Amino acid sequence: MSHLAGTPHGPRVAVVLAGCGYLDGAEINEAVIGLLALNRAGAQVRAFAPDKPQLHVVDHRAGAPVEGTRNVLTESARITRGQIQPLSELDPAAFDALFLPGGFGVAKNLSTFATQGPDGQVDSDLAAVLRAFRAAGKPIGAVCIAPAVVVMALGEGTVTIGHDEGTAAAIEALGGAHQACPVHEIAVDAERRIVTAPAFMEDAQLKDVATGIEQAVAATLAMVAAP
Amino acid sequence: MSHLAGTPHGPRVAVVLAGCGYLDGAEINEAVIGLLALNRAGAQVRAFAPDKPQLHVVDHRAGAPVEGTRNVLTESARITRGQIQPLSELDPAAFDALFLPGGFGVAKNLSTFATQGPDGQVDSDLAAVLRAFRAAGKPIGAVCIAPAVVVMALGEGTVTIGHDEGTAAAIEALGGAHQACPVHEIAVDAERRIVTAPAFMEDAQLKDVATGIEQAVAATLAMVAAP
Repeated sequence: MSHLAGTPHGPRVAVVLAGCGYLDGAEINEAVIGLLALNRAGAQVRAFAPDKPQLHVVDHRAGAPVEGTRNVLTESARITRGQIQPLSELDPAAFDALFLPGGFGVAKNLSTFATQGPDGQVDSDLAAVLRAFRAAGKPIGAVCIAPAVVVMALGEGTVTIGHDEGTAAAIEALGGAHQACPVHEIAVDAERRIVTAPAFMEDAQLKDVATGIEQAVAATLAMVAAP
Repeated sequence: MSHLAGTPHGPRVAVVLAGCGYLDGAEINEAVIGLLALNRAGAQVRAFAPDKPQLHVVDHRAGAPVEGTRNVLTESARITRGQIQPLSELDPAAFDALFLPGGFGVAKNLSTFATQGPDGQVDSDLAAVLRAFRAAGKPIGAVCIAPAVVVMALGEGTVTIGHDEGTAAAIEALGGAHQACPVHEIAVDAERRIVTAPAFMEDAQLKDVATGIEQAVAATLAMVAAP
């Protein structure tokens, strides 16, 4: 049995990871807190990540890049205990909602936002997935830096990344609107069915990051229940 | 501010990690769930890990060892956002309680239990820490396979690792006593002040693993409050 199986008739949620570690991959705490909130809500979760090399490998103690290459899918599998598939296999028709944790990996491996800002590109598989969920009116939850990448793919959306002015300006440049938000709260774009929370874009206690992510998951699943 | 700072007068808890990924390091979900429960309780948390090479590097998608070396401390830093110190710097006098998440890394990097079973040795720094907490009557919380390593260091203790018969027998061989326990419950050795939970030693849903770990953290901190 997968530890992420949920309940037989629970909402089907795809989670996209960007590696394993906030400086070169997915923010681990955000990913686990999101997965736990989804499991507690009975969601049937499948995890996905792109099968490609990370942009960087960063020593998380020193905070500096090091030699070597790691694969985004292989490293993401550490978080999900091996329960993960290539992002290219994510069929939007098979899911009711999408959830994206953050971490620099979202800006480095799921897009080129880290190096190109609002001139960057979203991973082509992820961009197609995001557009398909949007077109089908299926809710998208995203936290930390991931909301910027959602706007990059869609060219629209009212989202939050907390209070970071540079990222907020980039979101506006991409066609979105930014809503300032405390770490323990969320922004809801009811029309476009996008739910976002600042998470570790803010310098915050883990419990406050968790409260925001748990609310984001709850609001995303509430949209599934009220189509 | 550290995201694990807690409240100014909260209990001081040392958390020892064994890497980053359940097949060669710390079980990531257990670590995050434990850290979150500690932060929500206001604990002032400091994380530690041994500054040494991992026994293995395992591809968590394939489930098989791969070439290469990784450092236990450097990889553990991924979970704690760089907020971590070498295990050799852990001064038991500076803490009120100890918490050990699980993962194969506990049996591979914090001890030689994975390769030698009950004939193995605990990392010398961790063994000294465990004995110091026991001698001072300070509570020790441990989940998953970590309870076996606690017994290996102390030569005593009534603990649970769930229902795995081989590991239970090893615990008895090491001088401990094993108490079978469902994943969402805990075992409490009130005399020796050791609190344990099965976590991912059981094939369980993430939410049930979390319930057990949250109870283990609560019971450990309750012992701090009632010395």
